[in-house]
Amino acid sequence: MINGHGNDIHLYEGQIVADFSSNVVPYGMHPLLANFLSSQIIIARNYPEPDAVSLSKKIANFYGIPKESVVITNGSAEAFYLVAHLFSGCSSTIVVPSFAEYEDASRIHKHTQLFIDNVDFAKKSNFDTNLVWLGNPNNPDGRHFDADYIENLCKLNPNTYFVVDEAYTGLSSEDCSAINKVSNCENLILIRSLTKVFAIPGLRLGYIVASPTICEKIKSLKMPWSVNSIAIAAGSFIIDNYNLLVPNIEELLQLSRNLQRQLKTVEGIDVIDSPTNYFLVKSHKGKSSDLKSFLISNYGLLVRDASNFRGLNSSYIRIAAQQESYNSILVEGIKQWITTQS
Amino acid sequence: MINGHGNDIHLYEGQIVADFSSNVVPYGMHPLLANFLSSQIIIARNYPEPDAVSLSKKIANFYGIPKESVVITNGSAEAFYLVAHLFSGCSSTIVVPSFAEYEDASRIHKHTQLFIDNVDFAKKSNFDTNLVWLGNPNNPDGRHFDADYIENLCKLNPNTYFVVDEAYTGLSSEDCSAINKVSNCENLILIRSLTKVFAIPGLRLGYIVASPTICEKIKSLKMPWSVNSIAIAAGSFIIDNYNLLVPNIEELLQLSRNLQRQLKTVEGIDVIDSPTNYFLVKSHKGKSSDLKSFLISNYGLLVRDASNFRGLNSSYIRIAAQQESYNSILVEGIKQWITTQS
Repeated sequence: MINGHGNDIHLYEGQIVADFSSNVVPYGMHPLLANFLSSQIIIARNYPEPDAVSLSKKIANFYGIPKESVVITNGSAEAFYLVAHLFSGCSSTIVVPSFAEYEDASRIHKHTQLFIDNVDFAKKSNFDTNLVWLGNPNNPDGRHFDADYIENLCKLNPNTYFVVDEAYTGLSSEDCSAINKVSNCENLILIRSLTKVFAIPGLRLGYIVASPTICEKIKSLKMPWSVNSIAIAAGSFIIDNYNLLVPNIEELLQLSRNLQRQLKTVEGIDVIDSPTNYFLVKSHKGKSSDLKSFLISNYGLLVRDASNFRGLNSSYIRIAAQQESYNSILVEGIKQWITTQS
Repeated sequence: MINGHGNDIHLYEGQIVADFSSNVVPYGMHPLLANFLSSQIIIARNYPEPDAVSLSKKIANFYGIPKESVVITNGSAEAFYLVAHLFSGCSSTIVVPSFAEYEDASRIHKHTQLFIDNVDFAKKSNFDTNLVWLGNPNNPDGRHFDADYIENLCKLNPNTYFVVDEAYTGLSSEDCSAINKVSNCENLILIRSLTKVFAIPGLRLGYIVASPTICEKIKSLKMPWSVNSIAIAAGSFIIDNYNLLVPNIEELLQLSRNLQRQLKTVEGIDVIDSPTNYFLVKSHKGKSSDLKSFLISNYGLLVRDASNFRGLNSSYIRIAAQQESYNSILVEGIKQWITTQS
């Protein structure tokens, strides 16, 4: 496990006014969901279903896919580790910069690793590794490909499995999910999540969508009860009440676009355009760790030091848009910091 | 993952009056704990600590052991899978009958497996496999060894790691925990749990106690955030309020002894003596699956069909003592069933 993941707010207890470091929606948990889960605590006196099969069925039904194509996991992290385990000792191409768990999971399961950057990946159509890992839309930079592009890659490379992390698919103005391509692509494995949009990352709830054959193999490696009772209850309640509970994502994406626009006017930094609620900022001067500390000390704002993403360096921070009032303070804070850098 | 684990009450929704199939204490979650957790749901809007380090420290402090000797896990299941992964491809002796996850985890991680029954294990002092897995006290039969016996095995077999499942150590009239031997035995790995005594198996919370060297290696294989925020909060609250929250275990063990005594008077079955709240019953006639169905249909009582424990067969059920009134009905139900068997 690496140190320095995004959501390290627990390290700064009491100091943080606004958390730009986490890509989770900033509206918090819906009160109806919070109340429901509070009333459900008592179910934890029993073991959860060993494989959360009731939730698999519900999610499959919601998306119109076979229930045999869904495996519920303890966050997307367990999904990455299970896929890496299934292909233990194989070769992996990892598109970077990206979520560190693709690299960690495949290293732990002894894959040969090949790293390719965004630009080279977009030019490439043939792959000779057993797996290709990518985020779509990608964390940290929001890079994205449409579903037809993903399908085409699968067709062009029938001997390569494409492991596509769709954790942020609900937080993008570009519709890029390939969920409807899975039935047509035996070599497509999607990793998805309900926790980013519904602000429940602490419960740990993700799922895999893949062919029934792949799902069956993954289940044979999976430990029982990995998903806790409260997470299963949350997932079920969300699917049953999706439209009632889903936050105003369009508003959040507008906040992100506005913040990107404002930051582009700041001298000394570059903003990497992103259709998602989060995006990268590159500073021409100074170090990301110093900028992070400066913003905590002076404004109580937490940003993500993005220097430990492979392919990035200490020029980069990642920002997830918050409420307008905090966004303005962040712009001011970054401006101030730039003036202190010689 | 096997099918037919103990707590399958979710399969019989609405039919069950008393659940003798689960070894978890029958008193339910303490109201103070339930209220506290209900009030804490909102913390799930943030990611948990990646490695639950605050809880490791608290548990280490509670037991007077170094914090580097504790790894918090997603139930004891994750602990077994991590240990099996660390010793991937090695050889394992598994003492049976026992919890199926020792076998599943070591098979999934490609161990060579050797099974040895209780009686032979108790006679044996030298082992030539890399690992020996045992429950102490054991599930399903309550067999137990004292801490000195475990320490002695470790000393006699310096090249073998002893993986001792202490999930039920708090539910036995015999004090058999070897937690104070870990500092003296580099080859002792304990798997422990708070969920059985405090009735929170649905939250998934276990921990490993082992040498700092072993713990460090295990952490290097562990996925981040495997333990959810609510489980961490529960563990922390329990340790802070242990004496207030701990149920009356002596009363429960007395119920178990009484039930064992009553069942011994029933013709046609044998009771395997156990110092724990659960024990095995062997029927001279009929099949355990039929007895289980009979007790559900006629009395709403759920027992554990123990036929899928390696080393047992369809003569065995496992029973965990409940309240006196239910225990009497169970005795009556088993008597009735025996009369129907020719």
